Amino acid sequence: MFRMLQPLVLASQSPRRKSLLHSAGVSFQVRPSRIVEPVPLEGSLEPGGPCEVAKKCACLKTQAVGIDFPFARVLGADTLVVLEGAIFGKPRDAAHAVAMLQSLSGRDHQVITGICLAGPSDRVPRVFSVTTRVTFKRLTSAEIEAYVKTGEPMDKAGAYGIQDRGAFLVRSIEGSYTNVVGLPLCETIDWLMEDGIIQPV
Amino acid sequence: MFRMLQPLVLASQSPRRKSLLHSAGVSFQVRPSRIVEPVPLEGSLEPGGPCEVAKKCACLKTQAVGIDFPFARVLGADTLVVLEGAIFGKPRDAAHAVAMLQSLSGRDHQVITGICLAGPSDRVPRVFSVTTRVTFKRLTSAEIEAYVKTGEPMDKAGAYGIQDRGAFLVRSIEGSYTNVVGLPLCETIDWLMEDGIIQPV
Repeated sequence: MFRMLQPLVLASQSPRRKSLLHSAGVSFQVRPSRIVEPVPLEGSLEPGGPCEVAKKCACLKTQAVGIDFPFARVLGADTLVVLEGAIFGKPRDAAHAVAMLQSLSGRDHQVITGICLAGPSDRVPRVFSVTTRVTFKRLTSAEIEAYVKTGEPMDKAGAYGIQDRGAFLVRSIEGSYTNVVGLPLCETIDWLMEDGIIQPV
Repeated sequence: MFRMLQPLVLASQSPRRKSLLHSAGVSFQVRPSRIVEPVPLEGSLEPGGPCEVAKKCACLKTQAVGIDFPFARVLGADTLVVLEGAIFGKPRDAAHAVAMLQSLSGRDHQVITGICLAGPSDRVPRVFSVTTRVTFKRLTSAEIEAYVKTGEPMDKAGAYGIQDRGAFLVRSIEGSYTNVVGLPLCETIDWLMEDGIIQPV
């Protein structure tokens, strides 16, 4: 669906980001950055706000990978779950996942993805963030326990995955769905077209 | 994730509905109804409004299948795409798909799914509908042509599939995402639990 005009590298090991970009018909190489993601302190309010944190982390990943690819454009992303200004990371264990899901139950939270696109001829990388509001249904303890038992929450920020079993937790969203999955596809594709990296064919 | 307390039949041949219910961990048998879906007249305003049309069609499918399953609960669904009160069906051909996507470009439309759940001991079937607002990005002719060429729009109401290549068309939604895919999962799971068909384990 898209012709590649420049080589593209995805600086992410997330199978969800890979699958979103693939499904849109974009070709790319995958090279996860080796940087250690800063683990947000539970309930901490980050300086500059969570959008700045997501953008900064996306840029770190992109730049770390960019060094190895002097002739390609590199796309990096970082997704955060935010409840009342506090960043939720990945749960430490099952009890932590239960606690996270209890705090999200019956309420709105935000999912923020920072995106960074950089190339060898760019003086500064391009960076933006997309925010989606997510409303959870009110969860019973039995539902939370059954979901945590599947193991799905363990490698996910906020302890849920909207694209798999966790879909039943979400009553509604406002904004980009693919942003909640991990990459705001509409905005990313627009940007790749504007920068002359892909072309619809 | 859920224990089945009663047998469930899905009265739909949609692979997307099947996959949504499966991903939530619900077990069921599939039996598509043999009823011929009423094809809405292009641009027609249906009597009773599109929500009534979606509910009626979901009930027709459910009842047609229910006759063959006297000991099971049957779940039927029907999804419509509605632009300014007018129902969009599946495109007749590629040119029709292009025209549909041109009218959806840069605007909001609604996706309505009617759901019906019926069992042998129910005097009247339970029925409801869920509406999601979908906002398309402004599409260029090249983007529309490239997307139609993939063949994906041909079997889909409104000429797009939000869960596949069509994801890049959608800037944002307001409401249930799974409803746009074809089955509002949060509401359906709630209903199956309330009716004692499934139980979280």
